[in-house]
Parts: sequence; structure tokens; C-alpha cells
Amino acid sequence: MVWDSINSPSDLKNLSISELEQVCDELRTEIVRLTYKNGGHLGSNLGAIELIVALHYVFDSPLDKFVFDVGHQTYAHKILTGRKEVMENLRSESGASGFIDPDESLHDHFISGHAGNAISAALGIAKANELDNNNLSSVISIIGDGSISCGMTYEALNNIGNAKNFIIILNDNQMSISKTVGNMNLYLNRLFSSQKMLLFRQKTRYFLDKLPKKMSVSIEKFIKNIIFTAKGKTIFEDFGLQYVGPIDGHNLGKLIETLQNVKNFAKRKPVIVHAITKKGNGHSPAENDSYKLHGVDRDREKTETFTDIFSKKIVELGENNEKIICITAAMAGGCGLTEFATKFPNRFFDVGIAESHAVTYAAGLAKQGYCPFVCMYSTFLQRAFDQIYHDVVLDNLPVRFIINKAGFPGRDGKTHSGIYDIAMLSMFENFQIFSPFDRKSLINSLEFASIYNNGPLSIRFSKSGTPEHNCDNKIGGDKDTLVLQVGNNIVLPIDNADVFYVYKIQPFNYKSFLSKIIRYTRIFVVEEGVYGGFSAVLLEYLVKNGYFDIVKKIKIVNIPKTPVVHDSVKNQIYASRMLDCF
Amino acid sequence: MVWDSINSPSDLKNLSISELEQVCDELRTEIVRLTYKNGGHLGSNLGAIELIVALHYVFDSPLDKFVFDVGHQTYAHKILTGRKEVMENLRSESGASGFIDPDESLHDHFISGHAGNAISAALGIAKANELDNNNLSSVISIIGDGSISCGMTYEALNNIGNAKNFIIILNDNQMSISKTVGNMNLYLNRLFSSQKMLLFRQKTRYFLDKLPKKMSVSIEKFIKNIIFTAKGKTIFEDFGLQYVGPIDGHNLGKLIETLQNVKNFAKRKPVIVHAITKKGNGHSPAENDSYKLHGVDRDREKTETFTDIFSKKIVELGENNEKIICITAAMAGGCGLTEFATKFPNRFFDVGIAESHAVTYAAGLAKQGYCPFVCMYSTFLQRAFDQIYHDVVLDNLPVRFIINKAGFPGRDGKTHSGIYDIAMLSMFENFQIFSPFDRKSLINSLEFASIYNNGPLSIRFSKSGTPEHNCDNKIGGDKDTLVLQVGNNIVLPIDNADVFYVYKIQPFNYKSFLSKIIRYTRIFVVEEGVYGGFSAVLLEYLVKNGYFDIVKKIKIVNIPKTPVVHDSVKNQIYASRMLDCF
Repeated sequence: MVWDSINSPSDLKNLSISELEQVCDELRTEIVRLTYKNGGHLGSNLGAIELIVALHYVFDSPLDKFVFDVGHQTYAHKILTGRKEVMENLRSESGASGFIDPDESLHDHFISGHAGNAISAALGIAKANELDNNNLSSVISIIGDGSISCGMTYEALNNIGNAKNFIIILNDNQMSISKTVGNMNLYLNRLFSSQKMLLFRQKTRYFLDKLPKKMSVSIEKFIKNIIFTAKGKTIFEDFGLQYVGPIDGHNLGKLIETLQNVKNFAKRKPVIVHAITKKGNGHSPAENDSYKLHGVDRDREKTETFTDIFSKKIVELGENNEKIICITAAMAGGCGLTEFATKFPNRFFDVGIAESHAVTYAAGLAKQGYCPFVCMYSTFLQRAFDQIYHDVVLDNLPVRFIINKAGFPGRDGKTHSGIYDIAMLSMFENFQIFSPFDRKSLINSLEFASIYNNGPLSIRFSKSGTPEHNCDNKIGGDKDTLVLQVGNNIVLPIDNADVFYVYKIQPFNYKSFLSKIIRYTRIFVVEEGVYGGFSAVLLEYLVKNGYFDIVKKIKIVNIPKTPVVHDSVKNQIYASRMLDCF
Repeated sequence: MVWDSINSPSDLKNLSISELEQVCDELRTEIVRLTYKNGGHLGSNLGAIELIVALHYVFDSPLDKFVFDVGHQTYAHKILTGRKEVMENLRSESGASGFIDPDESLHDHFISGHAGNAISAALGIAKANELDNNNLSSVISIIGDGSISCGMTYEALNNIGNAKNFIIILNDNQMSISKTVGNMNLYLNRLFSSQKMLLFRQKTRYFLDKLPKKMSVSIEKFIKNIIFTAKGKTIFEDFGLQYVGPIDGHNLGKLIETLQNVKNFAKRKPVIVHAITKKGNGHSPAENDSYKLHGVDRDREKTETFTDIFSKKIVELGENNEKIICITAAMAGGCGLTEFATKFPNRFFDVGIAESHAVTYAAGLAKQGYCPFVCMYSTFLQRAFDQIYHDVVLDNLPVRFIINKAGFPGRDGKTHSGIYDIAMLSMFENFQIFSPFDRKSLINSLEFASIYNNGPLSIRFSKSGTPEHNCDNKIGGDKDTLVLQVGNNIVLPIDNADVFYVYKIQPFNYKSFLSKIIRYTRIFVVEEGVYGGFSAVLLEYLVKNGYFDIVKKIKIVNIPKTPVVHDSVKNQIYASRMLDCF
């Protein structure tokens, strides 16, 4: 196997195209094996193999800087840059991250996980090179067509300026997690098919042939000028980029040739290379169901999840209330909206990877008396912090936020932590925050949300936590110890305590609560989020109102404010040392 | 005066164009008077008068919904919609807000203050109309060319779809607060000058004249087709919008005629109207210095501000350290960067209203060993919460944040509150937070920031607070009461207390601190920000470590988590009731 001889990108340099193609085949087999073994992203990784091999063949990482957007498509990159061994335990603490991680390798130059940051970061790196008079190092940002819907990508494109040795690779598989949406993607499709362009050229030829010879020359020049400056001009050229493409992203020879030319050309002007790839390429199960094989989940159990329950309940609510609308930002499947989308296509909106727009769009709908549910993962809701404050909270609009993947991020790791949302949303007094802990409480909170119109609210739950609990969730057992728990994932290692899951985090009904807890000798507050949310507000209340006897009994347990390493949720809880006090 | 007869938009409907022009003149005089009296935005308001009169003439607010972006250009709108009286005390609690405020009038349909939200909100409103089968109500979003650099505007454009009765007015004065930047604005300029378009048409005519008559017909058709689909096509048409313009935004007759046509046309397809206006139009001081007369500040005192000190110090630091780079998002003047920008044009970047990009661009520079200072108002930094977490904090990059206008927002009011940044940034353990309280501490923090390379940090200060204090800022006076103070604006109404300004909020040196405060009988923690920042973390520390004696003495005083009404900072402090406990 060619494969065995490759331990760094330089080992690729002397290979022939056919040997490189063999490397691609071997990478494909390996990635399928590793992903089925460890879980992870499959389709996007299979689609990017040739691109990554070509990039490492033409450029010299880490001298040249690769800046990957999102980063879940980089398994081939990781394998080629000396990480065969850690890839064996991909997405476990002892193994490689499933995303780009600068702590892992010099070849992972800039962190990725959230879409849309690559061009901005790459522009900063390119500017540093320019200020350093470094003309030898290229900066290549590799983005997907999904990232094209991010406002941040546009903000960066709008600031390309005259960046030198600056290349964007647009890996266009016409899919983000779900199918990409929006006019920009329609636009890319038009570029891709290029039928209009062909037709235009044919027409031009037809006219040119018919013209008197002498006139034909000048008119040819004239029409060529039109082709070049008008019809041939893409939207990217309006941003100052040289557009190259579309090219076949699985044709290694063509890719290498193009990238070699582009590397040179980029000394003068920034370039975007538009490569068409196929998600799951070469692995038929992944090709045929690219949503399903977007990710392989090794921890998934057969039991019903919070998402499953939400998924069914929101359809039922939608049937009874025509004002209910669901909005997501490229997370329809993960948020359990597939059935709702099928059943109510007119009341379902996937706006693409555009969280900020999603929130304010929902605010517009709420303003008109509709009942919008914004469904997002906790980590991506951070993208809309300002919109939540400015467009929802200030005018007290009833936008409902269904926050999925709240709490420990599991194997996706630090870029996907859902540990900030409580602290973030509890900055606003009029924001109700629910944390359902079982089937019944989730359904109750959803029913409440569907009829409550007096302001914003959120319902947060985890991906992997189980909705089945044996506790009756009443303060008033007979134990000496009380645990107030926020979040779904943590299972306490004790049975000699009364456990109360805090269902409504904000506003919290202190009055009914204090008289019941006074008798306990120890009170643990275990919050699956960083300090600043429930436990912080509880402390404030107790101190402000002079309940020092209760304060003395309280032990606060939050997730540390440091990055959470990729691993199983169980291991992350252990590593957080949150349970050491029990 | 025509003026006296106008108390609602309907009073405009029967006026002739020349009478409407007279209304514009009278509005102009009135706005100048009100702004010099109360402070506020001048240039943008003068530039938008004809547009607003034309909009109210052609459409029927509040049946038709106006959604203003930013909203500081809406004084004419406020005056025309029955608010002459509250405009007398513009920007005071008893008077009108300087921005769009739904609490103030039905004509202020959707809140504004932060740029970029208008198209998203308007799309939500239009979708609600569609679902309601309401074909009679139009939705008009009025955006500036500055908002074109916002990622959020792009995200919305990308989701225009087939919105009906949906109109965007692009009020293009080629200025946001400072001069707008970016390729999209270059693009708008090209559309504006339209020289290429003219040239192209001339050329076409020339060729057509030369051709044999019969051929000329078909080739004319062909070339017209090119003009229409290629050269005549603007970037907006790639987003599915009909582009109309550019038109003269001060020619009332032309505006009204265009809007009437557009209102009709929009029943079929969404439209963007590109109007060219002049900031400060008709008032020569504002025309000639549009930055200076962007805003009139009635509270500004002659004394040196924190911004002034920063402004000089950053130039000095820049002279000694070539790695220092300043980045802002259309806030160069307000952040005190004018001199730095002039002196070091290669190391100064104004990225336009694009806070998310600004932060990640800085992260890219920091990654390469540069020393970036991101300079922003506290309220706009919220736009980059996720970028701070994902691109700066996770890889612990040394990006310096200079946070201006921290604390009470003053007359700009609730949309501009700088009260969340401490709670927001203290979610990250590796983020240092400085709160300088006088000249010396600001200079110290800046000098530290210029050499500290081990992670992110922020330095926050207010716009209006004074850097001159008489306290020596040591814990260890002889009073019984201690005040720990965070923020610059609040002047305590007591003199029988030792006051310690918390200079370094995070990490806070608890060890050196506790032994000194134990002797006080009362300890006030006065924080100019919502609870969740300094006082919350302090409580956590004290409770976790069992310092209950100190906890008992502590009185926590934060800004309430509710919107802050526009007024002087002094009045806002009073209204917050923060000082009631003294």
C-alpha cells in the first residue's frame, strides 16, 4: 500500500497522479473504517479527500496555512499530517478531535467547528504575512457551500481587499447538514450548470458567423468584452476575487493542475476556486442518504430522546394551532423537525447557516401574532446573542427558543459546548427559561410555550440525556441532603439525597421553595452549564434577602469555564470533577 | 406654515408636490433646531427627509409597516406621526427616543438601534402577511449603505425568496458613521456612477447603427437581452430582487412617482429601490463635516475623557511597537482611533459594520504574533459573542478588546446599553477583564495589554465618566463602610466610606483582598453592569470558600436586567434605584 509510506505531507510530493489516486482510495477505506468505529462525520469527509490530497500536494503546510471552515471534513487532512495513530481513537479524549484543533497539530492552524469563520481568520493571517513582507507563504481557506449562507462569510468577502497569496477553495457539495438554502446557493447552482453560459457562447458564435468578415472582428472583440466583463463575471468578482471554476472536485489531476496555476496567480490577486464535490463520494450508503450519513453516532441508544419527544409534540401542536411556525438554521434533522417540515411546509423555514437572521425573522413573525419556535443547538444560538437582546428581549416579543444539545458537548468537543446558554439568557429578566427533565415536563413546557404570548422563552434539553427518571421531583423527601439539578446529562452517584430537577430556571419561584429546603442539612446545586446562570441568580437572591442559613448549606457545582475536551458525555462529566464533592 | 396642519401621515395625502417640498423645508429647520437643543443625530436625519415624506405620502403607516434599520435617521418620521410634542424633549425620559421604539408609537413598528436587523424583521412581517392572506399591506425596510456591510443584512437578502409586497429602500449616502468600507460599497458606487452602463449603451448604439438593417433587428434583440440579463443585472437581482435605481433621494416628485410604481410592482416581486442621498442635506455645517455632525452631543463636557486618553496612548504604543494593530467596525471616531488611523494607515482597519468579522480577523492576526486591539462599543461587541468564544477564547489568542461606552447608555437609550459585557466575558476563565477608573489605571492597563501575549483581555470604560478621582484606591482607610466599585459613571452619594475601584475584574486577586476587608462592618459591591459579572463571581468565591462572615456584610448593587430608558446618565443612575441603599 502507498498508504504506509505516508506520514507527512512531504511524502506525497514525489508520487505520480495515479499513486496519489491510490492514496485517495486508501484514505476512503480508512475513513469509512474509522468513522464506523468511532462515530463522526462521514459524507463530508469522503467528499473532500481529493481536494485535501491535492492541497497537500501543491502547498506546503504548515508553511502555507490551511484554514478550514467548520472542520468536520478534515479527517484526510489529519491522517496525512502524521496523525494516523490518534485517528484510531477519533473523538475520544485519547484520540484526535473530530474538528480542527490547534492544540493537536501545527497543521491545524486555526480552530474550526462553527461555520463561517475561515475567511475572516485567513484574511488576518494573510495581512500578517503582508506586514511581515512574507511573500512565500500562501493562506488557503477551505469553505463549504453551507458557509456561503453565513453572514460572517459575507462580511469577510466584503473585506477581501487586495489580499495577496490568498486563496479560497469553495467545496460545493450542494449540501450543508441538510440541503443548503438561499439565493446564493441557487446562484452557485446556476454557475455550476453553466448552461446559460454555454448557450450564450453558442449564440455568440452563431451571430459572429453570420456577420461580414471585417465587421466580425470588431464585433467579436466587443462581444468578448461583454462576455468577460458582464456575463462571465460572477458575484465573487464583485468582491475583488478572481473566480476559477467550476471544476470537478474529484478529478485529482485537474485539481492539482488548477491549484498550481492558482498558487501562482494569487501572488497578484485573491482567487476563489469553485470545486464541485459529492458528499459521501465513493461510499454508496453515504452517497445515497447524505443526511443520514452526515454523521455516524456511536453513542446513540435506542431509547427515546428529548428530541424524539419534541419532534412528535411539535407536530401535534402545529396541527391544533395554525400560528405555530418552526425556524431553524441548517439543523432541521438534528433538532427533530423533519416531520414538521414535511407536514407543514408553509410553516417551516430553514434559513441556512444564518442564526442571526433566523432569530430576527422569528421576531418579525412574533410581532404579527404568530407563534414562532426557533430551534437550534445551544452552541449555535450564541451566534444570535445580540439579536436575542435587541430584536426579541427589548420589545418583549414571544419568540420560543428550543435549545437542543444543551450541556456537555460529547464527542464534538469544545467547539460545540452547550454550556453558556443559561448564563447568556438569564441576563434578561423577561426571558423565561425552562429545563425539562423528563417526558412529562418537556411536554408541559411545550404546551405552555404554544399558548404563552407575553414574552420570550426557551426550553433547553440535551441530545443524549434520557427523559426517563424515577424521581417524583418533589422537595419533601426524607433525606438529609437535597440536590437541585439543572440539566439532563448528569446522573448523580448518590442515592441518599432528595433530588429536585429545576424545571423552570427563570423566573424561579423562590417563595414556594425556601420553606421546603430550610430543613436540609446540605444542599447541592448541580448545574450543567457555566456559573452565571441558575446557581448565580439563586445565590444573589439568598444573599440579598438575608437567607444566610441556607447559603451556608449550599454547595455550588457548575461546569468549569474552560474548554471541554471531546469524549463521551460520561467521561466529560468525570473529567469536569463536578461530582467529586459527592 | 403647511407644517402646522400636519399631525398624522394622512394630513400629507392631499398636498401638492410643492406643498410637500415646503413640508420638507420646514422639517429641515425643525430637525436642526431640535438637534441643537437636545443633541442627537443630525446628518442622517437631514439626508432622509424627502425619503420619509415620500414614503408617508405613498404608503399608509401603520397599515403598511415601515421597518427602519439603525433608526437614528427617523426624526422626520417621528414628527410626521403625531410626535411633535415629545420631540421637543428628544432623548430625555419625558421625550421621544432618538431611535425607533415600539413603546412610543404604532408607527414605530419594529425596534431599531443596531444595524442590520431591518430586512430580517421585515421578511418575518411579510411572511405573516402572506400566511394571513393579507395582500393589502406592504412592508418597507429602510436601510442605509452602512448596513450593507452587515453579515445579517446579507443573511436576510439570501432568504428573500418570493416575498410579496416587500420593498427595500437603500438610502445610500455613502457614509455610515465614518465612511463606509468594503467591496459592496465600491460596488454601490459603481452602480451610482453608472458610467460603464452609459458607455455600454453608447457602444451598442454605435454597433447597431453600423449593421445591415435586417440583421440589426435580431442583433438588437440579442444585445438588449444581454443588457437586460447580464450587464443590466445588479448583484441584488442575484438575490431575487427587482432593482430600481439609482434615483435622486432628494427629488420628491421623482421619489413619489417611483414609490407609487414600486408599490404596485411589489405585488409580484420583491423590489429594492436605490436612492442616493446626501448626509446633512440642506444644512451646510452638516454637509461639510458629516462625521462631526453625525451626532450632536449636548452632555459633552470639555474635560478629558477616557477615550481621549486612550486615543493618545494607543498612538504612543503604536510608535514603539510595530506589531500593534487597531481594528474597528465603523466606530473609528467614537473609539478615538482617528489619530492612530492617520499615523499608521497600514495598521488600522475599519471593516465596516461587521463586528463578527472584526473579531475573527483580529484572531487571525494574533495567531501570527501581531498585537491586535479590537475597539468597539460595549453594545456592539455583543454581535461577536460567538466569535469571541470560538475564535479567540478556545485557542487562547491574545486579542485585546477596548470596550468603549461601557455602562449606562445615556441618551441613546436601551438599544445601546453597555451593561452586559462583564457578564458576557466573565463566562470565560482565560479572559482578563480590566476596568480602569482613572487616567493612570487606564494607561497601566493599556501598557500591560501591549505586552501581554498569553490570552485575550478587555479594557472597558465609559464614554462620559471622568478619569479624575480624588481617591487613592487603597483598601485600608479608616471608615466602617467599604464600597467595591466597578464602572466609571456612578458617583457615590456618600463620603463616609472607603471606596475601592475594582481595576482588574478577572482574574480577581482574592487572597490579597480578603484580609483587608474583613474589618469592615458593611461592604457594598456597586457594579455598572447586570448581575452575572463581578459581583456574581465574588459571591461564588466567598460561598465556595466558606467566607460567610464576609457574605453577611455584602450588599450587591447591579444595574437591573430591564431596558434602560434614554436620558442623561445621571438620570439613568437615579432611575435604576441603585443608590437607594446608601
